[in-house]
Amino acid sequence: MTFFEATCTAPVNIAVVKYWGKRDTSLILPTNSSLSVTLSQDQLHSKTTIRASADFTSDRLWLNGIEESIEKNKRLVACLRETRALRAQIEAKDESAPKLSGLKIHICSENNFPTAAGLASSASGYACLVYTLSKLFELPLNASDLSIVARQGSGSACRSLFGGFVAWEMGEKEDGSDSRAVQVAPETHWPDLQALICVVSDEKKGTSSTEGMQLTVKTSALLQHRIKNVVPKRMEEMIAAIHNKDFPRFAELTMQDSNQFHAVCLDTYPPIFYMNDISRAIIRIISEYNKDGIKAAYTFDAGPNAVIYAPQQNMREIYAILSHYFPGHAFEDSLGLKKNDTVHALPQNFDTRVSPVFSQGAVKQILHTKADDGPRVLDSAQYGLLNAEGLPKRLA
Amino acid sequence: MTFFEATCTAPVNIAVVKYWGKRDTSLILPTNSSLSVTLSQDQLHSKTTIRASADFTSDRLWLNGIEESIEKNKRLVACLRETRALRAQIEAKDESAPKLSGLKIHICSENNFPTAAGLASSASGYACLVYTLSKLFELPLNASDLSIVARQGSGSACRSLFGGFVAWEMGEKEDGSDSRAVQVAPETHWPDLQALICVVSDEKKGTSSTEGMQLTVKTSALLQHRIKNVVPKRMEEMIAAIHNKDFPRFAELTMQDSNQFHAVCLDTYPPIFYMNDISRAIIRIISEYNKDGIKAAYTFDAGPNAVIYAPQQNMREIYAILSHYFPGHAFEDSLGLKKNDTVHALPQNFDTRVSPVFSQGAVKQILHTKADDGPRVLDSAQYGLLNAEGLPKRLA
Repeated sequence: MTFFEATCTAPVNIAVVKYWGKRDTSLILPTNSSLSVTLSQDQLHSKTTIRASADFTSDRLWLNGIEESIEKNKRLVACLRETRALRAQIEAKDESAPKLSGLKIHICSENNFPTAAGLASSASGYACLVYTLSKLFELPLNASDLSIVARQGSGSACRSLFGGFVAWEMGEKEDGSDSRAVQVAPETHWPDLQALICVVSDEKKGTSSTEGMQLTVKTSALLQHRIKNVVPKRMEEMIAAIHNKDFPRFAELTMQDSNQFHAVCLDTYPPIFYMNDISRAIIRIISEYNKDGIKAAYTFDAGPNAVIYAPQQNMREIYAILSHYFPGHAFEDSLGLKKNDTVHALPQNFDTRVSPVFSQGAVKQILHTKADDGPRVLDSAQYGLLNAEGLPKRLA
Repeated sequence: MTFFEATCTAPVNIAVVKYWGKRDTSLILPTNSSLSVTLSQDQLHSKTTIRASADFTSDRLWLNGIEESIEKNKRLVACLRETRALRAQIEAKDESAPKLSGLKIHICSENNFPTAAGLASSASGYACLVYTLSKLFELPLNASDLSIVARQGSGSACRSLFGGFVAWEMGEKEDGSDSRAVQVAPETHWPDLQALICVVSDEKKGTSSTEGMQLTVKTSALLQHRIKNVVPKRMEEMIAAIHNKDFPRFAELTMQDSNQFHAVCLDTYPPIFYMNDISRAIIRIISEYNKDGIKAAYTFDAGPNAVIYAPQQNMREIYAILSHYFPGHAFEDSLGLKKNDTVHALPQNFDTRVSPVFSQGAVKQILHTKADDGPRVLDSAQYGLLNAEGLPKRLA
């Protein structure tokens, strides 16, 4: 039984200039450019194995050990169609190229983090799907070209095709051919930048971002002003701050843009809320920590979880502060934060009255990670997710 | 012992197009026009007695039974100076007019609602002060003229000088002489409009509105768009909705403007939050109640308390819904809402999953009130707050 197979991982990215609003919902063309930091796959990643085989009778998909329909997922179908068409072009030009474009495929994908935690898995998932397809089909595309395909799976996925600091340029063309990701700086440019992800407990499931952003486009009087007058300048300033490794400016822009994203959600009718009282306490705590100079930046995506960016040297202090207000969380100390650290003292001059101490588990988990590289190719023989029969090694 | 005395009450008003931002902080000139509904003094009012007497040796002030400094309160000093100057003009023209402008005064003022509840008392308080001074001094000013004086005490106080529906026209002049309140429609125009005030429990005291609004003016990229492009049109539409007694349109504009006010607070840096998880649950609950047609409008000022406007006929249903989610509140049934009402059923088709049921006392109190008249003159002999010696009858 001959088959062709590729296995890859792709990272999560957390935007510091937020994407919110589409000008074309089927091609996924955004109303504004955005910019993100790619987080280390050592802590968070999607992993995907794709096998093409003449023995397969249909395309099949398993996500986290559960089989899902491919046909019902128009965005996934679009990614498959585009990459197969590109493979067919290669086969048409080169007779020696294996005829993969006509074979059925099995796709098996897993996240190494619980989907229930509310961490955006669609970005890493679609980036991994498209990257793995490109490796399977040996497509001669660079990461920006691939980002155009990944964008059609999930908008923010396009930014997960690069490591480091990544801009999604909104583009102007109707066909979306200029709406793609570019690397602003690699992860090696600013190795000092780290992140704490605070997984916040929430009773209420929020509006999906797909629905939410189009309701904002339709009803918010403030969004157009953000799109036209705020984001273009903010993108330029953010890129300059990254090039200069100017953390205070990077942090200020990050916090302002997170605030404004949630402001346009609130200006939506009916309003959309993603942050809760715990999220807001984290903002107050970080604002207090920054009162004598900016040492950390919070940002919130379409959910209550906080991501706190800071230089490595501040992380111990920030973790001590978070531990004071949020007892009973699980902590993944993958970067050795607590090593040789027996004392967790709050900074002097910190006014603890900015927030009450929350009850056990208000913040469920804190993950320590950092800016890191883009998708990685793994050895399928050793790390592949499919067994000899082309079925998942692990089912849920 | 001869003295001159006046006793008056003045109402609270709750804006439906919000005031947020000053273009002149000492004259209290706003960055945009605003519009409010005056609520009945039968439920909420400030009451003030002012006495002028040759026996008094200094100006004195008691607020809710506690003596306060007048000199330290620049805004109060400005209101006194302006009204005394107007009185002096009368005395200069008419020799028979008693020489009140040179006499010391005692001011005694009380609210019939707890200040701790977070209901804005500065609007009713300053409106009552200025109205009572105008009666004491027999000033030949109409309510709009007086509103210019009251505005310098507390911006939103200018709107409490009228009953019914009141616009504060922002004006253009540097001296503030055209920044004043006008009545859009009297309370008798729309007697059907009622309100439920939900006093929400909150752990954290928010930013004062005086500080908060200027931080928004300084740092929000969205505020200028609101001021220039949103509010002028919204004012016109709101006035039309009131003239037409078009509740759905009135409600929609009210909710959108409340949302946008809190959106610009969130776009402030550092962000300002007034609503908490309970406030947001109330928004979700009212949005669900409105899903098949608008039957109620929420609005939130600079605090977590909700005011819900609705036609009288919907109030019983709204109260039943609020009672479901917020057990253990005190209810002031001054308008006979519960009379002959043994069943509090939720509306059919209401999806109760929009919010969890909160624990006892999350909403502490619900007050039922309605649109009503402006300041009232009372008989000092019967209702005055000062005793024969010119001291408060009641001290705290």
